[in-house]
Amino acid sequence: MSADHLGDVLAASIDDIRAAAGRLAGVARVTPLLESPFLNRLAGRRVLVKAECLQLTGSFKFRGAWSALTALDAETRARGVIGYSSGNHAQGLAHAAERLGAPGVIIMPADAPALKIANTRAHGAEVVLYDRAGGESREAQGRALAEERGLTLIKPYDEPMVIAGQGTTGLEIARQAGEAGVADAEVLVCTGGGGLSAGISLALEAEAPSLRVRPVEPVGWDDWRMSHAAGRIVPVPAGTPASICDAIITPAPGQLTWPILAPRMAPPLAIDDDTAMRAMAAAFKRLKIVAEPGGAIGLAAALFSEAVDADTVIAVVTGGNVDPALFADAVTRFSDAV
Amino acid sequence: MSADHLGDVLAASIDDIRAAAGRLAGVARVTPLLESPFLNRLAGRRVLVKAECLQLTGSFKFRGAWSALTALDAETRARGVIGYSSGNHAQGLAHAAERLGAPGVIIMPADAPALKIANTRAHGAEVVLYDRAGGESREAQGRALAEERGLTLIKPYDEPMVIAGQGTTGLEIARQAGEAGVADAEVLVCTGGGGLSAGISLALEAEAPSLRVRPVEPVGWDDWRMSHAAGRIVPVPAGTPASICDAIITPAPGQLTWPILAPRMAPPLAIDDDTAMRAMAAAFKRLKIVAEPGGAIGLAAALFSEAVDADTVIAVVTGGNVDPALFADAVTRFSDAV
Repeated sequence: MSADHLGDVLAASIDDIRAAAGRLAGVARVTPLLESPFLNRLAGRRVLVKAECLQLTGSFKFRGAWSALTALDAETRARGVIGYSSGNHAQGLAHAAERLGAPGVIIMPADAPALKIANTRAHGAEVVLYDRAGGESREAQGRALAEERGLTLIKPYDEPMVIAGQGTTGLEIARQAGEAGVADAEVLVCTGGGGLSAGISLALEAEAPSLRVRPVEPVGWDDWRMSHAAGRIVPVPAGTPASICDAIITPAPGQLTWPILAPRMAPPLAIDDDTAMRAMAAAFKRLKIVAEPGGAIGLAAALFSEAVDADTVIAVVTGGNVDPALFADAVTRFSDAV
Repeated sequence: MSADHLGDVLAASIDDIRAAAGRLAGVARVTPLLESPFLNRLAGRRVLVKAECLQLTGSFKFRGAWSALTALDAETRARGVIGYSSGNHAQGLAHAAERLGAPGVIIMPADAPALKIANTRAHGAEVVLYDRAGGESREAQGRALAEERGLTLIKPYDEPMVIAGQGTTGLEIARQAGEAGVADAEVLVCTGGGGLSAGISLALEAEAPSLRVRPVEPVGWDDWRMSHAAGRIVPVPAGTPASICDAIITPAPGQLTWPILAPRMAPPLAIDDDTAMRAMAAAFKRLKIVAEPGGAIGLAAALFSEAVDADTVIAVVTGGNVDPALFADAVTRFSDAV
């Protein structure tokens, strides 16, 4: 099923994750593992919630960005980094670069939400806009800039040190689950390119092998589910309609994340937009945390999916960078039902 | 200014707080101390946020309730406890009683929000409703019930073991501030009867004397501010209009909390409703936490009050039990301005 089975070397190892944890110590937040008796009752099982929305920059992406930047040698880092993103990776990378005193350049689509552009700039990054509709190639533009200035490209998930950084979430889950008396559980992780899920799967394999990652994706953007069924990477068909889960609508499992995650995951699940919004309302009402749609679908699976039958689940709420109007809509429409 | 100065014995001591911390260990949540570069910039100072909205039952009140119940001898506790509350103390007390297997009776006004009544019942408590308008005395009703069943009354703030429990928040602040490199700071605490502020003031005096509590109250319900000015307990005038900060509209400083807090506090501040809602939006947008109006005014003072001139402040977000419609209104109206 995966390169792993063929004996190939994986892009990241548990040693890389432990080393990343050392670099992140005292910088990234150790996010809490939350629990509510109301949610346990609603789900009919024990539900623990790893609140990565409380991470610096509002999502787990800061971990991978910091890990990648601190793995560069000082001279390379000082020349600067460049990334492509319209969302959470942009903010994580911009903030990491700012704190390390490295120039950060983020290529963003000109029609990205004004707030996300403003936030990325406010973190000190230089934002370069490209015209998504006009056929400009962001890759070409990025390559030209990178060569001209000697910038290092930091990809959002297919990057070993990014995977290692995201994996530190798994080290925390292993420890916190033990403290909470959890013997075995499914770990439901909102999954796009798979950097976080892959990293967590490696960390759990080493430190808590009775905990197992189960990716959760938006309906229609369930490329991990389709790939799992096919036993090879299957992309989302062209023309698939958008989802409110903007943070995780990636077209296919990553080339580096697939061989790590495929042999270590339970069958992926898909969640629709309304169920994502119900989970946002549940997180608001019962845990007092803000989840964005793409950050709430792991919790949605924990609470509402009939395909989940584990007695104990750990849902990672991966981010909270959500438009106020959308959040207001979710909590006013769905709070009574959770 | 206070009984303390006359040499009287205070209702709670640092030893009581440390003992309460021992009873709370592994039960209550150690809530995180959060920080956002955006909020620091907005405030023009360093702002750390103690997120007690993430505490069990959505507010710090669980600490005091658990502390009080575990301080009772087993036989007394087994007979049960009774409390008066329309809000956060009700839920904290009900959940503590439920977890300790003790009967819990909460006297609530019949016109309290249906959700708060439902939540208190869902925590396993027996809810006894009284008619606020009809002139029924809840005290008389409560006393009769307590005598009939041998229940112990747990007051919301004028109760030594409750003050000790709330004070454990201060022990955590002292430790977490040290880890965050904070040498001295004002600690802005949303204040009603003063149980939390009094407890924190004792904890800080012992463990971090360069941190000083500054109570923050709703405009109109600023009895601590008026009492501070007068040097004695001054109640809120009858007929004062309500505030959206429902959790902390208490009529006067407590008889036990006043002698503790009065000599240990910086001059109290008052915050209006709109500024409370701006702070709720800031907590939503920048920290990804849910604050109720009465739980947000400490942060409001940190961000927006011209009367605060400390370089570093720690704001305690005391609770997050807020109506979805009110929260939606706050985040849609005020997120652009934070």
